Amino acid sequence: MSDAPPTSPETEARVRASYARQSLMTTLGAELTEVRSGEVTITAPILPLARQQHDVGHAGLAFSIGDTAAGYAALTLMPAEAEVMTVEMKINLLAPASGDRLVAIGRVIRPGRRIMVVAGDVWAETGDQRRHVAMLQGTMIPV
Amino acid sequence: MSDAPPTSPETEARVRASYARQSLMTTLGAELTEVRSGEVTITAPILPLARQQHDVGHAGLAFSIGDTAAGYAALTLMPAEAEVMTVEMKINLLAPASGDRLVAIGRVIRPGRRIMVVAGDVWAETGDQRRHVAMLQGTMIPV
Amino acid sequence: MSDAPPTSPETEARVRASYARQSLMTTLGAELTEVRSGEVTITAPILPLARQQHDVGHAGLAFSIGDTAAGYAALTLMPAEAEVMTVEMKINLLAPASGDRLVAIGRVIRPGRRIMVVAGDVWAETGDQRRHVAMLQGTMIPV
Amino acid sequence: MSDAPPTSPETEARVRASYARQSLMTTLGAELTEVRSGEVTITAPILPLARQQHDVGHAGLAFSIGDTAAGYAALTLMPAEAEVMTVEMKINLLAPASGDRLVAIGRVIRPGRRIMVVAGDVWAETGDQRRHVAMLQGTMIPV
Repeated sequence: MSDAPPTSPETEARVRASYARQSLMTTLGAELTEVRSGEVTITAPILPLARQQHDVGHAGLAFSIGDTAAGYAALTLMPAEAEVMTVEMKINLLAPASGDRLVAIGRVIRPGRRIMVVAGDVWAETGDQRRHVAMLQGTMIPV
Repeated sequence: MSDAPPTSPETEARVRASYARQSLMTTLGAELTEVRSGEVTITAPILPLARQQHDVGHAGLAFSIGDTAAGYAALTLMPAEAEVMTVEMKINLLAPASGDRLVAIGRVIRPGRRIMVVAGDVWAETGDQRRHVAMLQGTMIPV
Repeated sequence: MSDAPPTSPETEARVRASYARQSLMTTLGAELTEVRSGEVTITAPILPLARQQHDVGHAGLAFSIGDTAAGYAALTLMPAEAEVMTVEMKINLLAPASGDRLVAIGRVIRPGRRIMVVAGDVWAETGDQRRHVAMLQGTMIPV
Repeated sequence: MSDAPPTSPETEARVRASYARQSLMTTLGAELTEVRSGEVTITAPILPLARQQHDVGHAGLAFSIGDTAAGYAALTLMPAEAEVMTVEMKINLLAPASGDRLVAIGRVIRPGRRIMVVAGDVWAETGDQRRHVAMLQGTMIPV
């Protein structure tokens, strides 16, 4: 489905090892479902513990998985010893986060040695339908 | 400490009742520590369940409490029957979220009938010192 | 080249009439080169009067044409009597704005009655090559 | 009026020399009215050549002077040989840009060696009154 090229097994292992240390992803039930070169997908249920006052997913849930997907997309294009940090991220919320699950796709728009510009989209899936619930645009740096 | 005027008991009760329904805030251990007119403070520990790969608070933690504080700041200035929704939010991360606790202060920059422009700051406190860890700027609407 | 459907002659005329009143676009030499449904293209030279200190296009040039393209993209999907206003816009700058001309494409991501989420890209063209110089994400409202 | 400390004559001269090369500022009639350490003020008329369709200042005008003020605020805190570049900037528009003149104040929120987080406000002044018309938050880097 994705046009992004595959990444190397070493890079995928590096991303997965780092992701496994993010306790917030575990708390949210979020899984790293695809690691490609410059594009990472995270899938999360909308757990009862991650809701806002109307009982749909909190903006912080969409942000957290979107930001993380975008950050690891950047990491796939960084040198092997680098780690990634979010400099800034903007999210526009398009629709309530309700449905069976959220799928966040992060991708690198412009890889740079000092600065990586990234983007992300979050979709809510219900059965075989999906709705666009959030859109992100941000900046990552290697640390 | 704050210059913001107090809010009415009815408004504070309305904000607290809505906040209590946000399960993500409960999950993060976040408490609504102050409700003033146009300014709301949320305090959260940096729980082991809300970390990123370097074991400091995840960007999603700072975002979640900053966005929520800004949203409820907007709600204090909305009509009694209104609820608040985030249209968009941007966060710049200034320093790692480590320390005893995070304190997020959200405030209304420009109240409008259709659109409320809000801002927020997140501080990490350790003992009696604090460090500025994030800055947010966004838009809320009544729904 | 674009997948966006054509717009009606009435809508195109409405967009062009409004655009013609934007003196900043005239000052910048910017032309409305395509009006489709939910997608508008503006083309501008990088005039000597619109540069920054390194003699390439100012961030304000890329912002101005990107914001305007996104705003008119939103207007194509609004009721006939509406006018459009920018609520907020974020721009990430990807590369210096140098070359023969800039081309800004604005598009609607999510049309809503109260809020329209828009995005834009700005490209620098030199001969038959183009470079991605800026990316925008924002919010428009009908007024 | 400002709490920001004064800058050195060398730094002010460096900022003014760079600003003088920004042709867009000249086109907009914008003047560098104050250079302090980490805080820069630019004042601009709302020229007939910089308007949008309702004959008030274009969002691109507020953005251009706000971004430039924030960039030079960052430059005051950079090493003598550095130049400054905008990585990203977000603007929320609060009110129409009408009045006698616009005043943009840019300031550094967090100076860093690699990344500077900046903010800005744009005010419209009419007689001795002023109205908050825009608020900016962004990232600058030395180049």
